[in-house]
Amino acid sequence: MQKWKRSARLVDMTQQLLGKPHQLIPLNAFAERYQAAKSSISEDLAIIHEVFREEGSGLLETVSGAAGGVRYIPMASREGAEELARDLCRELENPDRILPGGYLYLSDLLGNTRLVREIGRVWASVFHNRRPDAVVTVETKGIPLAYSTASFLGVPVAIIRQDSRITEGSVVTINTVSGSSKRLGSLSLSRRSLSEGSRVLVVDDFMKAGGTVQGIVELMREFHAEVIGVGIMAETQVNERLVEDYASLATLTDVDVKSRTIVVEPGSLFRQGGFLYGTDSDG
Amino acid sequence: MQKWKRSARLVDMTQQLLGKPHQLIPLNAFAERYQAAKSSISEDLAIIHEVFREEGSGLLETVSGAAGGVRYIPMASREGAEELARDLCRELENPDRILPGGYLYLSDLLGNTRLVREIGRVWASVFHNRRPDAVVTVETKGIPLAYSTASFLGVPVAIIRQDSRITEGSVVTINTVSGSSKRLGSLSLSRRSLSEGSRVLVVDDFMKAGGTVQGIVELMREFHAEVIGVGIMAETQVNERLVEDYASLATLTDVDVKSRTIVVEPGSLFRQGGFLYGTDSDG
Repeated sequence: MQKWKRSARLVDMTQQLLGKPHQLIPLNAFAERYQAAKSSISEDLAIIHEVFREEGSGLLETVSGAAGGVRYIPMASREGAEELARDLCRELENPDRILPGGYLYLSDLLGNTRLVREIGRVWASVFHNRRPDAVVTVETKGIPLAYSTASFLGVPVAIIRQDSRITEGSVVTINTVSGSSKRLGSLSLSRRSLSEGSRVLVVDDFMKAGGTVQGIVELMREFHAEVIGVGIMAETQVNERLVEDYASLATLTDVDVKSRTIVVEPGSLFRQGGFLYGTDSDG
Repeated sequence: MQKWKRSARLVDMTQQLLGKPHQLIPLNAFAERYQAAKSSISEDLAIIHEVFREEGSGLLETVSGAAGGVRYIPMASREGAEELARDLCRELENPDRILPGGYLYLSDLLGNTRLVREIGRVWASVFHNRRPDAVVTVETKGIPLAYSTASFLGVPVAIIRQDSRITEGSVVTINTVSGSSKRLGSLSLSRRSLSEGSRVLVVDDFMKAGGTVQGIVELMREFHAEVIGVGIMAETQVNERLVEDYASLATLTDVDVKSRTIVVEPGSLFRQGGFLYGTDSDG
């Protein structure tokens, strides 16, 4: 085993920590890897923590004791989240997104890996205190967001299907009614995809009245799972919402198909009493 | 602007580079950010490059000249890819995966963000020389893999649907016949999801005869797009394959429903003449 210089150690530790969010790494593992004293490792970690904290990109949590170690908690700064929401609002206001029936084209945003990663970072930052142990979404467009969020939280993803496939094995299915269009549908989740009693964070790209999210909450009950939070990329303003407790990044206040205008504001995450600015009751 | 210490600079630069794979960052941007001489920045980059190279996790590519800078290229070492394939084979051999009809349950693997990230790193490493500018997959199970691969390549994702939705706007649809079961189906991709003439990397979780991949190749023709590579997580051994040029991580050589045994070998990526060991003609 070669001995590492501090400069090389800092680069490697940064890389290791970023690749293992929310995972406890024993100080011994670092000390052995770098053939360095634990005191040197602690100094290195203090430097990394300070840089992450200054940049608002995360922090290192130290757990003392025999089973102790260090854990990287990815964070998004308030400024970062606000900038992301502003960018998203600007993108959403592009009138070329308007499709027949007042639907909006969003696939380009969800195909943008950079944007999706930053949204995942925000959700992970907002909800990690509620200790989710899985991220749940409905196919198809929510999947990139769920995957990104789960990566930052270091937890698995469970994907709910709108049809049930043979390759899912034994599934639990519930019937749903869309809150806005009153259309009938169903939601299915494979038994094996989610442990009973999980604490789940629900993530989706778009919400109207909230029928889908309400369906997910119901389906989660069948798994004795608790929904600890709901993160939505963009929501439309509606008179009656089926879901009250959620955090959105952007709110579409007006979509006018005739005049081809879309008006978008930063979402519920930023409102007074909301997740970022208000008092988060922590579950 | 504060002046940064080298130790803090190394941590921050590592973080910046890891977050922007395949993106050219001008040295000036670093020099300004850290209020440091370009020569110091170059020394820092040399340290980072050396650590990435030693660990096999990537390399820094320096582009000289006025429009120059540095670019982080994520890589997977051969040993890393082999270890990943071995882990995957072991996971796939679990007889509990066998479903009625000889299908295999794979959703837990695709919900494992750590595994999905490592697979994405391998595909990005194998195919980046062919300069893909988009990653394409078919919903649903291929999406996490496509997203992960595209993140490491710094390119967008386009998701092909098996039904066409109103929220996709104008779509191109082709009809398909499944290579193994001869079932009819269709594949649709939104016009706006993919630029004409793109160089696309196709990624999917599972391949039998290859009917789906063949369908994707056909659909890509409608976009005047070129398929520069195909990455498959697991394939079954079949007598006649519709697709020849692909790289798989694992090959299922036998699935016996009666005796409940699954035999899995490392995939085509590792075979003589394959992508990792053979002569890759580079497109």
